[in-house]
Amino acid sequence: MRTTTESKQKLREICRVAARVFYEKGYDGASMQDIAKAVGLTKAGLYHHVGSKDRLLFEIMNYGMDILDETVLQKVKDIQDPREKFRQTIIGHIDLIVRARDQEITVILHENRSLKGALRKKINARKRDYIHYLEGLIAQVQEQSGRSPLLSPPLAAFALLGMVNWLYQWFRPEGPTKQTELTQTYVDFFFRGLLGML
Amino acid sequence: MRTTTESKQKLREICRVAARVFYEKGYDGASMQDIAKAVGLTKAGLYHHVGSKDRLLFEIMNYGMDILDETVLQKVKDIQDPREKFRQTIIGHIDLIVRARDQEITVILHENRSLKGALRKKINARKRDYIHYLEGLIAQVQEQSGRSPLLSPPLAAFALLGMVNWLYQWFRPEGPTKQTELTQTYVDFFFRGLLGML
Repeated sequence: MRTTTESKQKLREICRVAARVFYEKGYDGASMQDIAKAVGLTKAGLYHHVGSKDRLLFEIMNYGMDILDETVLQKVKDIQDPREKFRQTIIGHIDLIVRARDQEITVILHENRSLKGALRKKINARKRDYIHYLEGLIAQVQEQSGRSPLLSPPLAAFALLGMVNWLYQWFRPEGPTKQTELTQTYVDFFFRGLLGML
Repeated sequence: MRTTTESKQKLREICRVAARVFYEKGYDGASMQDIAKAVGLTKAGLYHHVGSKDRLLFEIMNYGMDILDETVLQKVKDIQDPREKFRQTIIGHIDLIVRARDQEITVILHENRSLKGALRKKINARKRDYIHYLEGLIAQVQEQSGRSPLLSPPLAAFALLGMVNWLYQWFRPEGPTKQTELTQTYVDFFFRGLLGML
């Protein structure tokens, strides 16, 4: 359906604006009319691009996962050393959560109860792929350390996701802690928790 | 206004049911009529008890903070040793998040964008008190360890809150990891991250 770069760009622009409207009014509180107005389209024009409100929510979440792919996973894919690869993954993920540009999208990605059925399953499958990627990397880091694992890769992966994804609740770039300090501190904290040493 | 135990119990019951309705339909998607019906009151009766929809959301969140007080803080208040007190606090907080009974309430407590103005400030003040409590305890644990602190108490407190509050996203009591194993693993992981040793 949408194969050209131009229509992909248009869809992304709609997703960005719609995410802000959903963020402000809630998924149920925001009407397609509200979103059409914010995007600068007629309601019919909006439906033409996204099909339905459910589908729009799905496209926003899918876009969120695309951003994760593009700005985190693509950047680390050629790193061979597991520990460095994992370190860079954490740095990229933190950057994704704290940068203001995509905040509404990442929040909506976390609060995914509004999405139902097959579309929800698709998003959850993409999330699961990322979790498996983290688990695999954690297992490699543990193995590389030469020590007996102190906790299972799934529990470690979810501890990390909690620490990092929770940042949207409290971290403000203009606050007392700078992002570089936060990142360094969290990476060190996580590796100590995982391996019992630095 | 509400001073008797009986009206307090009634309010809590309303909060519990309303939390479930908000959880299912979203704050904006749920009408006071939906909630009245679920509680078994007339709409007028519901308004009599809670005043307004905003106020109801506030009461749910306030109830969530009351549960935290009652089931976590009250239980540890007489423990003198900082490390044991902190350990029991983590155990209590994890138990609060993972037990099914209060799940809707804790989710609503985290997704608090729907609450505005003075009521939001009140809830945020209660949350801040809890964060300060954790920070104080972390500082004591660090001091007791006799080592130079590896990270600041606020960053450690937020790492913990992330790990623990995120549990509602993935932990299921019927899953492969039992709650006691989860708790022990997370407590150990956190102390290693905080102190660099067990």
